[in-house]
Amino acid sequence: MNPIEIIIRKRDGYRLSGDQIKFMVEQYTAGNIPDYQMSAFLMAVFCRSMDAEETADLTRAMLDSGEKISFPASDFRYADKHSSGGIGDKVSIVLAPLMAACGLKVPMLSGRGLGHTGGTLDKLESIPGFRTDLSIVEFKNGVEKVGCIISGQTPEIAPADRKIYALRDVTGTVESIPLICGSILSKKLAAGPNLIVFDIKCGNGAFMQSLSRAAELGESLCRICEAMGKKSAFLISDMNQPLGRAAGNALEIDECLQCLRGDGPSDLMQLTLALGAKMLALSGIVSDGEAMGLMKSALDSGAAYQKFMEMVEFQGGLTEILRKAEPLKPAERVLNVRAVADGFIASIDTRQVGILIIEMGGGRSKLGDRIDHSAGIVFHKKIGDYVARGEIIAEIHSSAKIPEDYLTTRFLSLIKYSSGPSKTPPLILRDF
Amino acid sequence: MNPIEIIIRKRDGYRLSGDQIKFMVEQYTAGNIPDYQMSAFLMAVFCRSMDAEETADLTRAMLDSGEKISFPASDFRYADKHSSGGIGDKVSIVLAPLMAACGLKVPMLSGRGLGHTGGTLDKLESIPGFRTDLSIVEFKNGVEKVGCIISGQTPEIAPADRKIYALRDVTGTVESIPLICGSILSKKLAAGPNLIVFDIKCGNGAFMQSLSRAAELGESLCRICEAMGKKSAFLISDMNQPLGRAAGNALEIDECLQCLRGDGPSDLMQLTLALGAKMLALSGIVSDGEAMGLMKSALDSGAAYQKFMEMVEFQGGLTEILRKAEPLKPAERVLNVRAVADGFIASIDTRQVGILIIEMGGGRSKLGDRIDHSAGIVFHKKIGDYVARGEIIAEIHSSAKIPEDYLTTRFLSLIKYSSGPSKTPPLILRDF
Repeated sequence: MNPIEIIIRKRDGYRLSGDQIKFMVEQYTAGNIPDYQMSAFLMAVFCRSMDAEETADLTRAMLDSGEKISFPASDFRYADKHSSGGIGDKVSIVLAPLMAACGLKVPMLSGRGLGHTGGTLDKLESIPGFRTDLSIVEFKNGVEKVGCIISGQTPEIAPADRKIYALRDVTGTVESIPLICGSILSKKLAAGPNLIVFDIKCGNGAFMQSLSRAAELGESLCRICEAMGKKSAFLISDMNQPLGRAAGNALEIDECLQCLRGDGPSDLMQLTLALGAKMLALSGIVSDGEAMGLMKSALDSGAAYQKFMEMVEFQGGLTEILRKAEPLKPAERVLNVRAVADGFIASIDTRQVGILIIEMGGGRSKLGDRIDHSAGIVFHKKIGDYVARGEIIAEIHSSAKIPEDYLTTRFLSLIKYSSGPSKTPPLILRDF
Repeated sequence: MNPIEIIIRKRDGYRLSGDQIKFMVEQYTAGNIPDYQMSAFLMAVFCRSMDAEETADLTRAMLDSGEKISFPASDFRYADKHSSGGIGDKVSIVLAPLMAACGLKVPMLSGRGLGHTGGTLDKLESIPGFRTDLSIVEFKNGVEKVGCIISGQTPEIAPADRKIYALRDVTGTVESIPLICGSILSKKLAAGPNLIVFDIKCGNGAFMQSLSRAAELGESLCRICEAMGKKSAFLISDMNQPLGRAAGNALEIDECLQCLRGDGPSDLMQLTLALGAKMLALSGIVSDGEAMGLMKSALDSGAAYQKFMEMVEFQGGLTEILRKAEPLKPAERVLNVRAVADGFIASIDTRQVGILIIEMGGGRSKLGDRIDHSAGIVFHKKIGDYVARGEIIAEIHSSAKIPEDYLTTRFLSLIKYSSGPSKTPPLILRDF
């Protein structure tokens, strides 16, 4: 097989065979196809796209490039959730122990902050001692013993994705649905779940800005899961404002603990329960109607909270500090941002909220940057809320040497008001 | 400016500014943009194309990457011809001295064999001593003194094209009209002509297989010439059989001398005169009606023949050997291929004729291969001709150690017969 002929075939709009796709992925990972041929191939895929079968073949080839964890086939209790990324999205950290408390097994390989968004691993690392670098054996044992584990991709998992992703990032080939699907699923499926529920974020803080693109991604992910013998479902949720009240690593862990103690913000709980209900119903352990009751009792009884503590303990984290119900990592200063006029909050530039948190040290500007887990923002008001002049809109938590004036002005520039009542956007835009 | 943003803009189907195109070409040539970004860019251009203005900007950027020869602006006597390449296409070698004899100045930078096609420089190098590596100063002096020069691209000319072409060749991005136009014109215009006539070949021995693609290329080339202040015109000529009787380097020089002595094959002369008439009329030195008469007298008087000898002499070639009217470089053996049945010749697989000549050593299979100038084929019969069983169809001239049986069988497999008369295809398919 010749890489140029395969590039030309895709460039001319033809579909590729499984063998051709496997050849490109394998030979590129092995270093036998140079970057300049792979980038031409990726751009051809971007421009001509791939059908469901080709995308499944791509996913399979990337998955097969590394080690795979496996759990008993067709046991749909082994279930995972994936979100396409946003601001304040801490659902995984509440959902994984909640599902474990309901009887599922959640093998979750998660990621770090990407672009303007936060990452589940970065958030969990706010907990002193918490390890996100479990070996494959530790990971598998943890899933069986605790019922849920949230850890990072090991070097043995999907090396093809790591290499291809790095190339896509510098060749303008990121926003391609088949390439996104291949990348997400090769990592997710390596962890061995038999069921995945997808939360596709849509809005000014998400990678997908339109409902139609979000639906396209969700449908594509589910089609490939089906082709690979996995159960799946997706919903599209709003990301035109941060999810919950807190954005920033340690602040989000504080909020997750509130949720697990039964005191979480309503939007965050609504989305967590909607995703959980899908997972439970699909797994077959309860009917659609019973899922909500099961989750409520796992929260009310403290079982979900207890599962979270077990997971933290298993992964080396200190739980005493979490049990105190005090802020996990207070920042050096907390700045109250107050409204300069009366009005209703009409919009929040969510992407820029993420970027402001990165500026304060709460995320990485470049690979290898150290994160300040204390940095973040807590929203007192969100879209649709009325604010009177002088009222607190948000708290900015920062230990960085940035003038207060700058932080306040920058934050206020991200908020738009309207004089009349503005509508609270629906949280779940579509549920499939 | 950021290469990734420029790639994304083109990928998303937007037009690029002159500055953006210049940035990509300049920075790639300077080694500041890596191959993998350039190949993604080239594939985006392949898939989304470029409009006339963008293609002119691309051509200008590639042209400006190296040295440019210039002749008095708007003096349309400085005229050139370009062919898109075929088998037996020796028009340049007859046309350049013919035009010089008619009063034009022909600064012709020519190329070597590419793929299955022959190259003008390779043909001229059959003449002992003939130099195709003139310096820019020698080239310019020759054009002024002799009236025509056919030499090769120097390393100083369009280095961007050399680098981009090598990358296109290995990334499946060759057959893109804007990229082809940029490549052709950046080299052609570097030689300084103010007028170019294009001969776009179409058929089974050409790069363009369909009339519509050939027309698209011709129109695109002329639009860019216009945007760059050059006069231009094109015609589309048939390449479903070799042009003239001879294909192969030294054999083609023999045939050129026959043409210049007034005894050339009619198809070759028809095309040469059609292209010459266009050049003369566009240059403004004669009217449309006078061009043919001027060329006929330049041939009949021996002036064109004389100009050819002057050019050969200026470029270091030995003319005595050419004046003898004997084969320039006889091959070790000449094999007569005879018809195995009666019939009319219906088709010739022209591309494979070129490849067979390369197999016999008459072209390069890879960069740096030495050429056997004696190798080639002389056609006695062409499409539409009746052949009786046992009659000679062609002579195969070869010095290579290849069994005669193989050569004969291989050649005969490229010819298709029909029992009834087959139509001779028109030579000039469209004349614009």
